[in-house]
Amino acid sequence: MKPPLKIAIAGLGTVGAGVLKLIAANGDLIAKRCGRPLFVVAVGARDRGKDRGVALGAVKWYDDAERMAEEADAEVVVELIGGADGIAKRICEAAIARGRHVVTANKALLANHGTALARAAEAKGVALCYEASVAGGIPIVKALREGLGANRLSRIYGILNGTCNYILTVMRKTGRVFEDVLAEAQKLGYAEADPGLDVDGIDAAHKLAILAGVAFGTEIRFDAVHVEGIRHVSPLDIEYAKELGYRIKLLGIARLTEHGLEQRVHPCMVPVETPIAHVEDVFNAVVADGNFVGNAVFEGRGAGAGPTASAVVADLMDIARGDRPPTFGVPMGDLAVLPTSPMERHRGAYYIRLMVVDRPGVIADVTAALRDEQVSLESMLQRGRRPGEMVPVVLVTHPTEEAAMNRALRRIGGLGSVLESPRVIRIEEL
Amino acid sequence: MKPPLKIAIAGLGTVGAGVLKLIAANGDLIAKRCGRPLFVVAVGARDRGKDRGVALGAVKWYDDAERMAEEADAEVVVELIGGADGIAKRICEAAIARGRHVVTANKALLANHGTALARAAEAKGVALCYEASVAGGIPIVKALREGLGANRLSRIYGILNGTCNYILTVMRKTGRVFEDVLAEAQKLGYAEADPGLDVDGIDAAHKLAILAGVAFGTEIRFDAVHVEGIRHVSPLDIEYAKELGYRIKLLGIARLTEHGLEQRVHPCMVPVETPIAHVEDVFNAVVADGNFVGNAVFEGRGAGAGPTASAVVADLMDIARGDRPPTFGVPMGDLAVLPTSPMERHRGAYYIRLMVVDRPGVIADVTAALRDEQVSLESMLQRGRRPGEMVPVVLVTHPTEEAAMNRALRRIGGLGSVLESPRVIRIEEL
Repeated sequence: MKPPLKIAIAGLGTVGAGVLKLIAANGDLIAKRCGRPLFVVAVGARDRGKDRGVALGAVKWYDDAERMAEEADAEVVVELIGGADGIAKRICEAAIARGRHVVTANKALLANHGTALARAAEAKGVALCYEASVAGGIPIVKALREGLGANRLSRIYGILNGTCNYILTVMRKTGRVFEDVLAEAQKLGYAEADPGLDVDGIDAAHKLAILAGVAFGTEIRFDAVHVEGIRHVSPLDIEYAKELGYRIKLLGIARLTEHGLEQRVHPCMVPVETPIAHVEDVFNAVVADGNFVGNAVFEGRGAGAGPTASAVVADLMDIARGDRPPTFGVPMGDLAVLPTSPMERHRGAYYIRLMVVDRPGVIADVTAALRDEQVSLESMLQRGRRPGEMVPVVLVTHPTEEAAMNRALRRIGGLGSVLESPRVIRIEEL
Repeated sequence: MKPPLKIAIAGLGTVGAGVLKLIAANGDLIAKRCGRPLFVVAVGARDRGKDRGVALGAVKWYDDAERMAEEADAEVVVELIGGADGIAKRICEAAIARGRHVVTANKALLANHGTALARAAEAKGVALCYEASVAGGIPIVKALREGLGANRLSRIYGILNGTCNYILTVMRKTGRVFEDVLAEAQKLGYAEADPGLDVDGIDAAHKLAILAGVAFGTEIRFDAVHVEGIRHVSPLDIEYAKELGYRIKLLGIARLTEHGLEQRVHPCMVPVETPIAHVEDVFNAVVADGNFVGNAVFEGRGAGAGPTASAVVADLMDIARGDRPPTFGVPMGDLAVLPTSPMERHRGAYYIRLMVVDRPGVIADVTAALRDEQVSLESMLQRGRRPGEMVPVVLVTHPTEEAAMNRALRRIGGLGSVLESPRVIRIEEL
């Protein structure tokens, strides 16, 4: 057996402790699988006294993780501190500069600085591994680069944020409003005290940008992702979705269009009979469409110490075996240059819910606005009559261009009989 | 860029032609991804005149594929002929003996001779790759060996035969009987003229045995798989399954029990809310339970030229890159020796449907037989009354041992008021 792979771990929160526990529990099997043991030689974290439930034994402790990345006698530095900038970034840069491989679970860092880090790593001949940064329990980066690597992909999409999926699942099952369910999720530890990163779609957008980079072999362009969160999803819309044969999911979708690369995160109505409609609670899922494989679906836990540690150690095993596929699937010099396909050029069907005064002529005004923009309707739902009162009217369009849809919506929103801003949810054909 | 990987292909049916088409269509991208081009130098097949829709150009043609495996100037031989014995086996043995890597889509060969071939390959220092042999469109072998490689697995299960899944899906949606739907599937090309390999569960058992080998790092033991097919699944049982909140799926399940390795293929009732219940038509799915990752679900097309070619070429790309994980995840000398956990020791819940004469005392006799074997009932369904006539009675048990269940069923089957053999479908908690 070859000598052990020497590892330094920066950050010892739940994931860092999970990695240590995993190596302690499965180290013998791992050594057989990759032909050499994994050996944690150093740990960099602040509070040495804290009980993390793992024996640190002879591991060298650094209070300064950045110094550890520079000085430790390790071939790999595992960055588990988090954050797009600051110390996490400096640790990765320092490790690469000293010719050490880097494994990270940091999606914000990858989404914002992944391309620059990948160039630096390639120049130094070291690996930059990030399986744990996207949907921890799903080995999707490996699947895109290797398992499905014989394919050209046209689209990749998925449920990339467990908190949002949990909230939407509970809302659908109980009929409760967003704010209530969020508060409960916070109590259960499924949502952060500051929930914006999750419920406003940013976390999903980080992951989507990373997936798009590796799926299409292109620079990571987080700034080009169109992002909407789930705060505006209401029980009424969830009810209508059921009636129309859909479920509402927060999806991240990246696809190649005639205009370039389209990247978007927003609530979607997905047909109830598709596999992704049944991915519930905190689970994540990713679907890839390839030109030979067709579509392949991957589902698993997106977060948590165990699944994330599983992904981190899988990366370490690749490094231990000497497997070094290019960071984004192809060498950095071969990255595809893809223009951004703007949201105004997006084509798709739309669900629109209006709150209108129930009086003659309202529907005529609404449908005239749609007709003038060449938006054709697939169906309209208006139940019961309450003359003079506010009633919901639901419209489902045929596929149309987002720019035309937006013009029609502005006109509809301005109608005196339309009492609230139109609620719009894109319908996704999967 | 490194020199091309020289490949010889044995067998030029739909999959062989698919591999050639894939390399022609995506070869440029593949070369970037693995750092060298894939180059088909030789093809071994019988009828050179047949139009396969691919340009063979300067490829050297061998009428005798076995001779090709021995003589061609190739580093890899791809075996796409099929069959557990005969020429397919000889080709793989010849290739390995001459120090060539082998890639095969042949599940019958792997299930029956996989361990011996893997030993031969390891001794010669060449790769034996078989991603395409199990669930073509799902990169599950790579996921088990690498993506989830940091985990100890306790169970792996899945829908491994697209023909059966298609038939069961159509039966559920239309209420038609097995024989009708099978005949239609044969007309559509989803089932073979001789359907036994599929509908009797053998094909799924081949795949399960391979999956168990790589999931648990042990010898492939196809002979130890308990196999039942779907011929006895009736529309009545499908109806009852719906009523009880289940769907009927043919699953292959391998798990570690206190008695050893349990491997079984049979129709199962699975809760309708689980992801696998929604894997429909010809799609396959595999679920792995790991001690850190939790459960991970993989879904995709199980057969067809495109998905199978995608898997074959992914294996070729691994070989081109020089990635050589051990055939069953660990070196052959480290394979786990696992006794077979016999079906009589299986524990689970059971669905039992009896056709009985509707007269006093019948239920008392049936429940006495269950009580005497310590089998406890979760529920019983008996609808309507037709005194003196034949009516169905459905029993659902709590988890019990199969041996006890069988003894109770023998006694129940012998009751004068029970008119047909009891129909039994195991209920699977997922």
